[in-house]
Amino acid sequence: MQKKRAVNIGLLGMGTIGSGVAGNLLAKSKTLARQAGSPLSLKMVAETDTSKHALPGLQQSVFTADYRQVVYNSDIDIVIELIGGEHPAVDYIKEALKNGKHVVTANKEVMAKHGTELLSLAQQNHVGLRFEASVGGGIPLISPFQRDLVANDIQAIYAILNGTTNYILTRMAHDNLDFNVALKQAQKLGYAEANPANDIGGLDAAYKLAILTSLGFDMDVNFEEVFYEGISRLNPRDFRYASEFGYAIKLLAIAKRSGKLVEARVHPVLIPAESLLAKVDGVYNAIYVIGDLVGNVLFYGQGAGPSATSSAVIADIINIAQNINARRDNAPRFIPEKTSGIQSISDIQTRYYFRMEILDQPGVLAQISAVMGNHMISIASVIQKESDPSTRTAEIVIMTHPASENEVQKAIKVINKLGVVKEISNFIRVEAI
Amino acid sequence: MQKKRAVNIGLLGMGTIGSGVAGNLLAKSKTLARQAGSPLSLKMVAETDTSKHALPGLQQSVFTADYRQVVYNSDIDIVIELIGGEHPAVDYIKEALKNGKHVVTANKEVMAKHGTELLSLAQQNHVGLRFEASVGGGIPLISPFQRDLVANDIQAIYAILNGTTNYILTRMAHDNLDFNVALKQAQKLGYAEANPANDIGGLDAAYKLAILTSLGFDMDVNFEEVFYEGISRLNPRDFRYASEFGYAIKLLAIAKRSGKLVEARVHPVLIPAESLLAKVDGVYNAIYVIGDLVGNVLFYGQGAGPSATSSAVIADIINIAQNINARRDNAPRFIPEKTSGIQSISDIQTRYYFRMEILDQPGVLAQISAVMGNHMISIASVIQKESDPSTRTAEIVIMTHPASENEVQKAIKVINKLGVVKEISNFIRVEAI
Repeated sequence: MQKKRAVNIGLLGMGTIGSGVAGNLLAKSKTLARQAGSPLSLKMVAETDTSKHALPGLQQSVFTADYRQVVYNSDIDIVIELIGGEHPAVDYIKEALKNGKHVVTANKEVMAKHGTELLSLAQQNHVGLRFEASVGGGIPLISPFQRDLVANDIQAIYAILNGTTNYILTRMAHDNLDFNVALKQAQKLGYAEANPANDIGGLDAAYKLAILTSLGFDMDVNFEEVFYEGISRLNPRDFRYASEFGYAIKLLAIAKRSGKLVEARVHPVLIPAESLLAKVDGVYNAIYVIGDLVGNVLFYGQGAGPSATSSAVIADIINIAQNINARRDNAPRFIPEKTSGIQSISDIQTRYYFRMEILDQPGVLAQISAVMGNHMISIASVIQKESDPSTRTAEIVIMTHPASENEVQKAIKVINKLGVVKEISNFIRVEAI
Repeated sequence: MQKKRAVNIGLLGMGTIGSGVAGNLLAKSKTLARQAGSPLSLKMVAETDTSKHALPGLQQSVFTADYRQVVYNSDIDIVIELIGGEHPAVDYIKEALKNGKHVVTANKEVMAKHGTELLSLAQQNHVGLRFEASVGGGIPLISPFQRDLVANDIQAIYAILNGTTNYILTRMAHDNLDFNVALKQAQKLGYAEANPANDIGGLDAAYKLAILTSLGFDMDVNFEEVFYEGISRLNPRDFRYASEFGYAIKLLAIAKRSGKLVEARVHPVLIPAESLLAKVDGVYNAIYVIGDLVGNVLFYGQGAGPSATSSAVIADIINIAQNINARRDNAPRFIPEKTSGIQSISDIQTRYYFRMEILDQPGVLAQISAVMGNHMISIASVIQKESDPSTRTAEIVIMTHPASENEVQKAIKVINKLGVVKEISNFIRVEAI
């Protein structure tokens, strides 16, 4: 058999993930060559921060500060984009695709906001665009949705897609920590960034959810329509009460068929304590998928980190290289046809958990339940707790039957004005997974 | 764009799974055609039992009792083998491949015993051979190993691969049922066959393990070398004692790197109660994979049944049809090179749980531990339980530190001859997953 020429790789971005991928490409070159059907050669690395122009085993001449040395390099077959963020990453990806390069990216923001456009561009240019690492780190997810679950009508996806917040929630639940204390510990351990806003605010999970929704429901999701809410409102008390009702609290990314539309939302959720997702602790991710044929499937693993991300990025590289070596087309097989049809958060129906601080006097619950009744919200159960004699207040926790989000928001406004209610300390949506 | 001709399918076997696949191909024809890039047409169904020659939506002329009408039918592109068992299924698959047909099979026994040979045959004939449904029903597993995890050195696979036994063990653990009672209930619910020997004896899981081992460790596994042992020796008492030590009992299929060899074995195992696999209850399957890059990944779902199996079989069909329509080669990309290197069960090192019935008198433990010491087996903890004054016996449970299976087997023989030991009621291997 004729010896195949190496498949040449250009890397954009030499941060933590980029260094991990580059290091593993070098360290595993022999076994990867066997998998790919030819050697994989890291030809060029573009990184604007020249202090990062070093990796044992890579010659200095491989490094450049100019992305064009990669994207317009006629020797390079595959461009790996590991810069992160929307710009300039999306622009570089477009240039690479238009210039006939296959692209592998781990960029959730770019794929969430520009996925369909980029896949079309790849198809037009007869090149591959792979993004397995953009959701769930090394957990196989994109490929299963694209290949293994295609016979299914996906009914719902419930997912823990952000390890930082899952770590914080785990510590709050098990160790009774306040949110800020748990966040600081996560930062100390390297599980949360110095600026953790995108993680704790739910944005990171929302990007990933948009990608999964697009794949699972075959639609060009308009990212602006994905609702997200973070975890900073949660209090250790919420975990204790949830537990008394038999629930855990997780930050879930939910995509769910709802008539002709699809719900797509990220927010804290009470889920039954015995569900598998409730048992996913620490920095792990888990994705629970319900399909009409396959039933319930769960994927679990490390959702981040240079090694796990390398696993996915290198798998994408090998897959493209195999096709190059077999002279098989790498163009995306399948691009969503339908335009976005995301249901507004106001229109969802679900159950709710409320925690309120009320005056400790008779008739308060009657007033609250009257308001709820006016808004078609039916109470399923109530716990009244922890009277504080000094302030003559008490804490009350209410679980409702399914109600309309829109009506719940209206009821919250009215309840907040009741003289007997000091504050609605929290409200959390409930899912019976 | 030119309209593509239909991809024509021939089905071998119209049992429960065959009917499920055929029914779903018909019911979902419109969405599947979009996925595949052309209609999928079920042209011919071969089934020797003519009483099964009927399916709403299929003309009578589609049915035949003669497999050659499928395998040698020049109209047919893809042959789906759902007969099960080794012969004649493997012979039909070979004939189909040699005759230039792509093959999709759910046959674990055939793939476990003849996988490498069949993949080579497919490669020689430039046709596809897919077997996603052969392990774990609809759970994506074969494809993740072939595609998504290829950059990893797989270190271990721990898997619950048989829903029947997992259901029985769940009932024994939670409801304190005897094995035979739990088995009868499983049969009543349709979770166990009238002749459950292959399931409860571990053979079914061993076939599946052989397939996963071949993929995960890139070797042509000789199925004869896969050790398996069933669950019928287990007693509800074992579950209670295991629980006292903080363990659950599962029938696990284990493949694990051990120097240059690979352990491949199926048997009941004590695993830590807090591990995710311990929480997999009922008929579900779960596969826990440890890779050097990806870390720990878990796949979970329904491992059997016509719907879940259809999900995998139809995904394979669509994948082949996509390639046919794009004029892409379907030949297997990767065939194991290494010949089998399975470690003998005698050579493994693990921890052990023993339950013994002993005479209720002083010095018995000293005698037992002396024998164990002679065989380099060190005791980690002991519970002595439930003296029976009428027979003057007591039950003792011992957990050991890691020891050699070979020495353990020798020690068992010696201990059985001790006058003070009435019987070794059970011994179970322990894994710290």
